[in-house]
Amino acid sequence: MKEVVAIIRPNKINATKEALAVLGFPGLNACKVVGRGKQKGITGEVTFAVNPELEKQEGGMKYVPKRMISLVVDDRDVSLVVAAIIKINRTGRIGDGRIFVCPVEEVVRVRTGEKGPAAI
Amino acid sequence: MKEVVAIIRPNKINATKEALAVLGFPGLNACKVVGRGKQKGITGEVTFAVNPELEKQEGGMKYVPKRMISLVVDDRDVSLVVAAIIKINRTGRIGDGRIFVCPVEEVVRVRTGEKGPAAI
Amino acid sequence: MKEVVAIIRPNKINATKEALAVLGFPGLNACKVVGRGKQKGITGEVTFAVNPELEKQEGGMKYVPKRMISLVVDDRDVSLVVAAIIKINRTGRIGDGRIFVCPVEEVVRVRTGEKGPAAI
Repeated sequence: MKEVVAIIRPNKINATKEALAVLGFPGLNACKVVGRGKQKGITGEVTFAVNPELEKQEGGMKYVPKRMISLVVDDRDVSLVVAAIIKINRTGRIGDGRIFVCPVEEVVRVRTGEKGPAAI
Repeated sequence: MKEVVAIIRPNKINATKEALAVLGFPGLNACKVVGRGKQKGITGEVTFAVNPELEKQEGGMKYVPKRMISLVVDDRDVSLVVAAIIKINRTGRIGDGRIFVCPVEEVVRVRTGEKGPAAI
Repeated sequence: MKEVVAIIRPNKINATKEALAVLGFPGLNACKVVGRGKQKGITGEVTFAVNPELEKQEGGMKYVPKRMISLVVDDRDVSLVVAAIIKINRTGRIGDGRIFVCPVEEVVRVRTGEKGPAAI
């Protein structure tokens, strides 16, 4: 099993989730991250208006708000999931995001104790 | 060493942390995520009242608020930690969450430079 | 390729990002986490004034606000990145944080489809 992690634009998260659900991958987790790619956030992209408290705490760095989605899939499904995420998220402009594939050794569904692909 | 990641209900995070601390695993990180399992969030579960701004940005998808906890443990402790998380979080209802076990190659404590299990 | 994940103090995130950018690692993601190390948050550190709603939902546990940063680097760059994060974040006081190194099997840049080190 693999974890597919994608860092994408906030306005693409819904379409990405819908596409993955249609393909048979309804389960995923998402959270807010701030990202900065090779272009260091200087991309004409909307950046955070960092609030004064955060500014004091963290300095004036420009952040680009992103969403991180993560789903665990069977090895054989990795290429499909990656291709679907690219299809939905590619605009051709800087900031389209990145996808990481990481190994997962075990998955357990808490409710039933099922393990492995049955728990995905 | 392994990273044990659990996606659990928000109202279980305190009991989960307490149980892990009692068992000798006081260190962990937690963050807010939104999840959707195979049931696609249509489970009678409380879902986010997505605020209008988010709604415009991300569309009207129903989210289920979850907490993600993550701790790095010795290989030999994985089964104990997984069993403890299940014990605390299993209600038998959909939405109990999932646990992932991922490989970790190195851990370093910033303050001392200790590495490996000593840094856990 | 490896993912280097560091759990650090909020007031160190800007200096850490600057140092990594200067060393040639401009791309990273960051998110807010709450952490508790072996000292269980009883370290004289500023802890969350948990708001009443959260308190009701999660109980009265003390949290220490942290930032998690994550970047994917070439295998040969892991030791440099780890050393730089330690250099910036070590104060010698409890709560300096921890660094984890995890395997990453594939990286894809969404905009171009580039894979592997070229996509980092």
